[in-house]
Amino acid sequence: MIKVVLVGSGNVAQHLAKVFQTSASIDLIQVVARNPIEMKAIVPETRICTDFQQIADASVYVLAISDNAINEVAQNLPFENRLVVHTSGSAHLNIIGTKNKQGVFYPLQTFSKNKTVNFKSIPICIEAQFEDDFLLLTSLAVAISDKVYPISSLQRRKLHLVAVFVCNFVNHFYHIGASICEENEIPFEILQPLIEETAIKIKSLSPAAAQTGPALRNDTETIAKHLELLQDETFKELYILTTKSIQNVKKL
Amino acid sequence: MIKVVLVGSGNVAQHLAKVFQTSASIDLIQVVARNPIEMKAIVPETRICTDFQQIADASVYVLAISDNAINEVAQNLPFENRLVVHTSGSAHLNIIGTKNKQGVFYPLQTFSKNKTVNFKSIPICIEAQFEDDFLLLTSLAVAISDKVYPISSLQRRKLHLVAVFVCNFVNHFYHIGASICEENEIPFEILQPLIEETAIKIKSLSPAAAQTGPALRNDTETIAKHLELLQDETFKELYILTTKSIQNVKKL
Repeated sequence: MIKVVLVGSGNVAQHLAKVFQTSASIDLIQVVARNPIEMKAIVPETRICTDFQQIADASVYVLAISDNAINEVAQNLPFENRLVVHTSGSAHLNIIGTKNKQGVFYPLQTFSKNKTVNFKSIPICIEAQFEDDFLLLTSLAVAISDKVYPISSLQRRKLHLVAVFVCNFVNHFYHIGASICEENEIPFEILQPLIEETAIKIKSLSPAAAQTGPALRNDTETIAKHLELLQDETFKELYILTTKSIQNVKKL
Repeated sequence: MIKVVLVGSGNVAQHLAKVFQTSASIDLIQVVARNPIEMKAIVPETRICTDFQQIADASVYVLAISDNAINEVAQNLPFENRLVVHTSGSAHLNIIGTKNKQGVFYPLQTFSKNKTVNFKSIPICIEAQFEDDFLLLTSLAVAISDKVYPISSLQRRKLHLVAVFVCNFVNHFYHIGASICEENEIPFEILQPLIEETAIKIKSLSPAAAQTGPALRNDTETIAKHLELLQDETFKELYILTTKSIQNVKKL
């Protein structure tokens, strides 16, 4: 059993607290949280602690807290030379500081409150300063997920950038679509099968091979019609620039 | 039984030929195709015809052909005053011409060759010049799909524009992600669960409500870091413009 102390009380902490308790090879011995109210519904109250001085002995300390709190919390831990990991997509491994052994345990998914997630299919990105710790983090990760990846701090920064494109920016394009639908009294749900097919298609085809549409065909007539239909100036600029970007790829 | 003649031999025609033959309330009496080779694997050879003069009597003629062929093929049909529909997302109802009764039967999905689709979940957008024909197209659509929508030509044009954003442009953002992953030796499959969750999340939340990320939070430090990491100039411009567009929505 891997003895784990979890620090934090937010979304990620709550999801991790739940899933750690479902695994037979993980012993979640303590949750340290300044705001333990929501944690009380997830973890037995005897295992919740609000005082960092009372922190238990564990094999790994998981800091599921906001990026700008990681360094301070890590510095103030009342012990040395133990494995301390953060769960951030963008913070560097060495933000943990030199007092303890550094690691990263980053589940790559958007977590919403009150929405159960199937951890088995969530990729866990791990990184550690030392080989032994890397093996321990691998054991911790495979206990909750089928998808475990060694990812360096530099790769993780790039991964975070990629997530902005394929998640945040894609969602904004869904919003552009939804707002055009709303203006024209078209139910947006009509697009849902197309949206899901587009997301699933790239499992079997590279996005470059899956590309279709007027930009790729250089169908200038349709492109001109679409630009006429677009009223929002920024949406129009996005249409022009994305079309240009698709055509740049084609030329390669 | 609705007697249907299908004109065309491409992707959409092949998918429609397959699904029409699975429905008990549709009688696909003939397929008219200039290149019938692939159709022969789908439809009994006796029902395939290459000569428009031999076209059979039917309740509805479905032209599953390219946009720029619709008008010419419709004009050259050797009959008058029957229901003739096209399957295009962008062509107007009246492209059918005045010789016959006009209609549209537009399945909103990307069709790939050799990939079976579940028609039940594909939205069918229908439009007709006359009420009776509209009812017939509704019967034809409900025979193969659970999702049937009355959509006008103007709405269909807008829908096509929306599909460019939520399908073609979104796929290009997947490509941007995949190319950054490739440069950094990160397996792109690591993003797949996030991509699918992003596509599915908007079934229960509006895209505006589902929006997250550095642009929305106006996290200028992360935005600056990301711009530094981006090497492709067009990708960088897209990052800046999409960030601006997300922040415009926030201000509303």
